[in-house]
Amino acid sequence: MCHREMTTSWKQKVEKKRSQLRSKIPKQWILDEATLEKLKSEKQSLNENLDLLCSKSENEITHSTILILRRKLSCRELTCLEITEAFCHRAALCHQVVNCLSEVMFEQALNSAKLLDDNRPEILPPLYGIPISLKDQCNIEGVDTTMGYVGRAFRAKTTEEESYIVQLLRGQGAILYVKTTVPSSMMATDTVSNMFGLTLNGLNQMFSPGGSSGGEGALIACGGSFLGLGTDIGGSIRIPSSYHGLYGLKPTHGRVPYLRVDNSFEGRELIPSVIGPLAKDLADLRYFMSVIVNICKPWQEDVKCVPYHFDLKELQTSRHYTVGFWFGDGVITPPPSDIRALKLCQDIVNRTPGFKAVNWQPPIELNKELHSIAMEVDIADAGTEIRQEFAASGEPMIDILKPVVLEQCHLPCSVNHWWKLNKRAYDAKTAYRKYYNSFSADERPDIILSPLTLAPFRPGDMLKTTLRYVLFVNVLNFPSLNIPITTIDSKIDHLMDITQAKCAEDEMVMTYWNELISSGDVNGFPVCLQAMSPTYDDNLVCKFGTWLATELIRDRA
Amino acid sequence: MCHREMTTSWKQKVEKKRSQLRSKIPKQWILDEATLEKLKSEKQSLNENLDLLCSKSENEITHSTILILRRKLSCRELTCLEITEAFCHRAALCHQVVNCLSEVMFEQALNSAKLLDDNRPEILPPLYGIPISLKDQCNIEGVDTTMGYVGRAFRAKTTEEESYIVQLLRGQGAILYVKTTVPSSMMATDTVSNMFGLTLNGLNQMFSPGGSSGGEGALIACGGSFLGLGTDIGGSIRIPSSYHGLYGLKPTHGRVPYLRVDNSFEGRELIPSVIGPLAKDLADLRYFMSVIVNICKPWQEDVKCVPYHFDLKELQTSRHYTVGFWFGDGVITPPPSDIRALKLCQDIVNRTPGFKAVNWQPPIELNKELHSIAMEVDIADAGTEIRQEFAASGEPMIDILKPVVLEQCHLPCSVNHWWKLNKRAYDAKTAYRKYYNSFSADERPDIILSPLTLAPFRPGDMLKTTLRYVLFVNVLNFPSLNIPITTIDSKIDHLMDITQAKCAEDEMVMTYWNELISSGDVNGFPVCLQAMSPTYDDNLVCKFGTWLATELIRDRA
Repeated sequence: MCHREMTTSWKQKVEKKRSQLRSKIPKQWILDEATLEKLKSEKQSLNENLDLLCSKSENEITHSTILILRRKLSCRELTCLEITEAFCHRAALCHQVVNCLSEVMFEQALNSAKLLDDNRPEILPPLYGIPISLKDQCNIEGVDTTMGYVGRAFRAKTTEEESYIVQLLRGQGAILYVKTTVPSSMMATDTVSNMFGLTLNGLNQMFSPGGSSGGEGALIACGGSFLGLGTDIGGSIRIPSSYHGLYGLKPTHGRVPYLRVDNSFEGRELIPSVIGPLAKDLADLRYFMSVIVNICKPWQEDVKCVPYHFDLKELQTSRHYTVGFWFGDGVITPPPSDIRALKLCQDIVNRTPGFKAVNWQPPIELNKELHSIAMEVDIADAGTEIRQEFAASGEPMIDILKPVVLEQCHLPCSVNHWWKLNKRAYDAKTAYRKYYNSFSADERPDIILSPLTLAPFRPGDMLKTTLRYVLFVNVLNFPSLNIPITTIDSKIDHLMDITQAKCAEDEMVMTYWNELISSGDVNGFPVCLQAMSPTYDDNLVCKFGTWLATELIRDRA
Repeated sequence: MCHREMTTSWKQKVEKKRSQLRSKIPKQWILDEATLEKLKSEKQSLNENLDLLCSKSENEITHSTILILRRKLSCRELTCLEITEAFCHRAALCHQVVNCLSEVMFEQALNSAKLLDDNRPEILPPLYGIPISLKDQCNIEGVDTTMGYVGRAFRAKTTEEESYIVQLLRGQGAILYVKTTVPSSMMATDTVSNMFGLTLNGLNQMFSPGGSSGGEGALIACGGSFLGLGTDIGGSIRIPSSYHGLYGLKPTHGRVPYLRVDNSFEGRELIPSVIGPLAKDLADLRYFMSVIVNICKPWQEDVKCVPYHFDLKELQTSRHYTVGFWFGDGVITPPPSDIRALKLCQDIVNRTPGFKAVNWQPPIELNKELHSIAMEVDIADAGTEIRQEFAASGEPMIDILKPVVLEQCHLPCSVNHWWKLNKRAYDAKTAYRKYYNSFSADERPDIILSPLTLAPFRPGDMLKTTLRYVLFVNVLNFPSLNIPITTIDSKIDHLMDITQAKCAEDEMVMTYWNELISSGDVNGFPVCLQAMSPTYDDNLVCKFGTWLATELIRDRA
């Protein structure tokens, strides 16, 4: 096939795919030009504007929580169909503005909802009638999983290919109605592809939704979903959560089953991708986890899952807790908003009887080593696999993949080099653990609170941000929960002093922050921190999140 | 350095190392030529012959168990020094016949024992005064870890390099007195190296001790140790246990800490090497595991360890248990001795109320795929790393490594190929789990009993055996316990019908069996089976082992 044919062909496929997607949105939900224009121009008011386009009862549903709707379903105050319709409608509207959906399954979803209503069981399954959105990677029978690649379009998945988690969700009564956009290959923290174009931030359309679970983040933030599944190999759950003020849990590997979920670099197990929930409500997130873990016992089918119990209890206030505060890695200076958020939490910890705040300050060289391992892992195959995916359709490489798709002259590394990289990762993890154990028993942090994304970025500016507070957590395989703390306020979150920059990267990040603050566009943007614990302590991370969120609400009141 | 110098040099190093090793055995324990000759010629009576060379009190100690000696230490019936001396003496004698030690630390051990006696604490630590032998890979301060490589000699390990498990053992009061031989690189199931030469089987010197924990197996079988640590990446704990009628536990990965234990292919995590105990007594083995797991909580320092509790309870006879019996993989026909052992166990299961025997018969293609993945993993770097180790000293490559050290024209595979191999392994493990789940709940085996080594082999004949009942367990990461069932009896374990062979490999194995049976040399050789459970069910495997062993003793009585 000559190059020209190939070019025509991939563009045609894109056209066909996009038009199919649009055709699955019922006509009455298609926005007219004027409304669409208004929604797109009022960049920070999408949620409020969407409320005006939905009925009062729809808004009541989409602004509710899983646990509340479950009670309403239980006492027949609502039907599965009503709930599903409300979410399909909202998701359709949201998508037309921020372009967050990759697959629309409204028809199937509404049919499933009717079926559930018509065959209502005595005891409602734990996710009965609850719509759950899915990152594009999740395979559903009869539906594409493109992961943003044109070459993967129009190859609907078979029953055998369906993701185990999809089967579990359906088995628990959940309604599957949409899949959400990702950057091609998922190896980027913006959300753009030749296939679907650019996804925008749902809270502030001047900014990126983050990635790679960017479509998920935007959809949930706009009320188009309560809770969706994302994956995280380098921040892909946490970053979109952070950029939308959501709770996002990157669990320890082996908590939520990844079996038959498509991915890049399958079999690259040095830094395993994990799958986990993004949600507006932390109680919903924890409920969801308890269903998937305690009820579904996924280790019975997915050999990568570890037997485990997900705990719904609260922190035992009778116990002593230590919280480590990380004010910086010694390479990149966190912005004033993050420092303010950390201090706000430190005050809360300090005022709470039985709680203690300590400084978390791992050796700078160790922070650098963990980050550099992550970077080397990402370029281990020099982009071979991703390049093949693009070549399959002839679509052009996209800019945001430049960090992982090297020039053609680079070769994939040998297996010996790869094993050495594994060993380096083990050594670095061991050293990190050693630093952790260097604290005396009553000063050793149960939880570490750390910066995460530092600042939002505008579409196209991904490479002006840093992943230095993100990737090390994937190397360590620590559970990490993104927690919304406050919002950016340019009156108090001042410009940074670039002359104090520690290195070129630090200067780049500071300069970008100053531009954002000067523009005023970031006012009101969420400021989030991540709460981490050593591997396997997912329960502690979630309990701490609930406690902190409650204290933050009390503070605001 | 010219080739000739190199040659001289490695031979000199071997000479020096062997002479140092010998110099560490007290003169009074050196056997005279005549005695040595007799011990070497009476190939099936080493244990009895060693008894005659040791005092009655020494024999009482070395034929005892950890749990009994712990009681005697507790009521001051014995001292740590008496116990240590008895084991050092016996190990020294055993070594002179079967060549099972790579490092001798008698002086340090006796000093430690004295120190423990002189500073006897109120409450005795769990391994107080108990000698534990170690496979050569374990690093001890001031001691070499050669792994059979000449190039690694005379590079004593530093404090920082000491294995975490060594520190734990010492911390629990254990006496470290010997390290045991391995085949160079450990990637073979015989025990031979240019450095230390050949290790022989301790029960029957006509045969190999197996490998790679061959020195451990021989030493324990001859009473030179109760319990030692081995490692298993392809049978290396189970095979020497099988060839010496010992209990050997290959735990699930992450049970016993591997931190700072030297190994080949460090960072090759697709089939992880695991570390675990070989022991004469199963109660000792389980006690040891409970100490390392429950008391030491190794996950606090070794990030590869998983939090877990090791259970010392017995099988609940109130419960229903299903045991799967695997009479063959469809490729290699197990010998009559294994079939007899399986039927013996099946009879026991069938006669026990609440127990049920089922046939375990995974698809032949799946058995083949698991085996072939293991083989491909072993040659992934075409022998690059091992070749470098040999080149470091100029020592010649040894024959038993031919299966993993390919001709120089082969290159290490690329990281993309490696990831695909990882994915294949995950797919095969998933398919195996699917077969497991295909049994109805009350027919799904708690335990699978399977052949393991099939038959012993004579030194030099390693390549006439098969690992088809061994390697798949490493791919699956199933816990597996080697259990002695009976012994070979050429009167009932007849010749096999070679015309019935299913393939060339089957014919080779059958032919070898027939030679062994015809020679009569295998009479009395242990017949063992492995008891496996799905990943993480180590407790169940051990409890089942105790139950089965008790029933077998009852049968014999």
